[in-house]
Amino acid sequence: MTRPRVYLDWNATAPLRPEARAAMSRSFDLTGNPSSVHSEGRAARRIVEDARASIAAVIGSAPRNVVFTSGGTEANVLALMPGLHGKDTEPVTRLIVSAIEHPSVLAGGQFDQSEVLLAPVSSSGVVDLDRLTAMLSGQPPTLVSVMLANNETGAIQPVSEIAGIVHSHGGLLHVDAVQALGRIYFDINALNADLLSLSAHKIGGPKGVGALVLGESLGGGFEALIRGGGQEKGRRAGTENVPGIAGFGAAADALVKIQEPAMARMAKLHRQLENALKAAPGVTVFSADVARLPNTTLFSAPGMKAETAVIAFDLEGIAVSSGSACSSGKVQPSHVLAAMGVPQNLAQGAVRLSLGWDTSEAEINYVIEAWRTLSTVLLRESRTVA
Amino acid sequence: MTRPRVYLDWNATAPLRPEARAAMSRSFDLTGNPSSVHSEGRAARRIVEDARASIAAVIGSAPRNVVFTSGGTEANVLALMPGLHGKDTEPVTRLIVSAIEHPSVLAGGQFDQSEVLLAPVSSSGVVDLDRLTAMLSGQPPTLVSVMLANNETGAIQPVSEIAGIVHSHGGLLHVDAVQALGRIYFDINALNADLLSLSAHKIGGPKGVGALVLGESLGGGFEALIRGGGQEKGRRAGTENVPGIAGFGAAADALVKIQEPAMARMAKLHRQLENALKAAPGVTVFSADVARLPNTTLFSAPGMKAETAVIAFDLEGIAVSSGSACSSGKVQPSHVLAAMGVPQNLAQGAVRLSLGWDTSEAEINYVIEAWRTLSTVLLRESRTVA
Repeated sequence: MTRPRVYLDWNATAPLRPEARAAMSRSFDLTGNPSSVHSEGRAARRIVEDARASIAAVIGSAPRNVVFTSGGTEANVLALMPGLHGKDTEPVTRLIVSAIEHPSVLAGGQFDQSEVLLAPVSSSGVVDLDRLTAMLSGQPPTLVSVMLANNETGAIQPVSEIAGIVHSHGGLLHVDAVQALGRIYFDINALNADLLSLSAHKIGGPKGVGALVLGESLGGGFEALIRGGGQEKGRRAGTENVPGIAGFGAAADALVKIQEPAMARMAKLHRQLENALKAAPGVTVFSADVARLPNTTLFSAPGMKAETAVIAFDLEGIAVSSGSACSSGKVQPSHVLAAMGVPQNLAQGAVRLSLGWDTSEAEINYVIEAWRTLSTVLLRESRTVA
Repeated sequence: MTRPRVYLDWNATAPLRPEARAAMSRSFDLTGNPSSVHSEGRAARRIVEDARASIAAVIGSAPRNVVFTSGGTEANVLALMPGLHGKDTEPVTRLIVSAIEHPSVLAGGQFDQSEVLLAPVSSSGVVDLDRLTAMLSGQPPTLVSVMLANNETGAIQPVSEIAGIVHSHGGLLHVDAVQALGRIYFDINALNADLLSLSAHKIGGPKGVGALVLGESLGGGFEALIRGGGQEKGRRAGTENVPGIAGFGAAADALVKIQEPAMARMAKLHRQLENALKAAPGVTVFSADVARLPNTTLFSAPGMKAETAVIAFDLEGIAVSSGSACSSGKVQPSHVLAAMGVPQNLAQGAVRLSLGWDTSEAEINYVIEAWRTLSTVLLRESRTVA
């Protein structure tokens, strides 16, 4: 009997959607450089611009405000730029990021890393608005970066409220929406974000492509990080990743079509799975008391070891992760859980299960069944170790 | 009768090789993030590391010295970094680039653009070694960037001689080898380059991926431009472009196999084509008196208009370009020809034909035949205009 293979690490990367695969394969036949004026070049240009419109549509932006990058990380680094300003505000000179941001945001982008100030979060993993307000009061114009949903816990951040606070202090807001796209609905204008980062491979597009979306509210001060040719209206040089962009556009189009029923189904399966996980003795689900993505569960039990758990799940045919996948496979304590004040012995056992639109009921039933055995082993082991 | 379509713009971008297409398609079935520890992640990691070895092999480097980027432009920007130093030399504080470099090098990378010094070239488009030596003498440690072959004229630069000069002055040499790879043989150690840029889509790999290769001679001072996760040994953050990297690796492998006979055939067809082009009255081939790539011809005639010529070729079914394709399709005077002292009226007519490994004898015969008509029209028109 073949053991099924269940992929529950959609937050690390989603499987490539068939629509994205098809669009990429079609692009393989088009030779041209999108900057070339001959017909091959113009055909490649059309692919890029069609995809730009698809991505703009999914988040309510204008296509001209979408800047393609090599992924979410580059979009974040590009966004965190000293000197940006609003329509009627002074250029930002400081950076505040929440303590639970992605490593590319924590690193400060184009600000000196030593100048990055961390905004604290509650024990539930949500940005503390009072503390953020205090950090902004009486200070020079500040760029603030807060993610729409955390990649580890799934906790949704009060981004539109934060936008109000930041703007009332003459600052700008960057929103890393990489993990939120395709899991919850949002619109760049409703969020009031001045800059917003996206990544293709979290929504079933290919790895290696993303976008920074500029808000209509952004006044100026934007300069390319990768300078050279005039691509992306001078905002990001380099020959465009035509196959990647084609796949990103197709994944965005597919998302619009499948989003509603797929997300409802995913949310239902997620609840079933999470209830089964919680039924084991001693299990804590992080950020359980706040709004979360309808696909993400980060849990632990005292003394449980995440590395052991990930391998045990893998041997049972289930792909899960220990926190995020952004640190080259190295096992590091989660900065997210540390910021939430989770004790080390609980944080070291944190395992993330994240579902996707194609996750089936049969798969979740299999995982729930496997968890009965796994929990006994993992929790027994943890008790011995602890 | 269907008119043939002949693609002679390989220097702008090469058609995707079948081997690259197959490798990319195979990668579509692998879901994992290369940083994940489960089996899906490990499978994706293997693709990335196999490709790294393939790319290292084609230029004589060690795989650990290959840093994947989103393309040649990012590799150039990453390379041009203040503070780099050799094994026994002081950190560089200045940047000298040749006047015929790619826009991403001319922009100065991570140096302030105002600090970029231009090393002049001869009327044949080759870096002037005496002038470069004078610019280095008695000055602080300098990073010098000179391309191995120019993308517009195809002129090959005396890079290993330049390395000797630069090193004897305590400096470092970056070589943009984007246009040379797959057209001429070279080895990073034989060139004595401290940093070397490559791009996949110039050798039949996909757009959107490239590499910066670090020489064994590089001592330190390297910092990531795109910071965040620990990917690429901390030298370039962001989830790896797995399909793009797979395609790049497959294109490099294919290059090793096809290189020798394909390049000999390409060189022969290139000579036939260039001889036919030159036979028309008033035609000048640029850099004709120096060593050039065996696939590139940049030519003009007094009063000829490049934009008109590119469109006329396109209508005859032949894709060619006016200089480089790096400036968003805008018609701009070539900085390369300006640096060579070519008069404006000749420079404005410059058209580039660049062949590839798949260019056939039938295609070149067709272009030579078409040129008989085209040259009459383009050169007559140019006489009327001038």
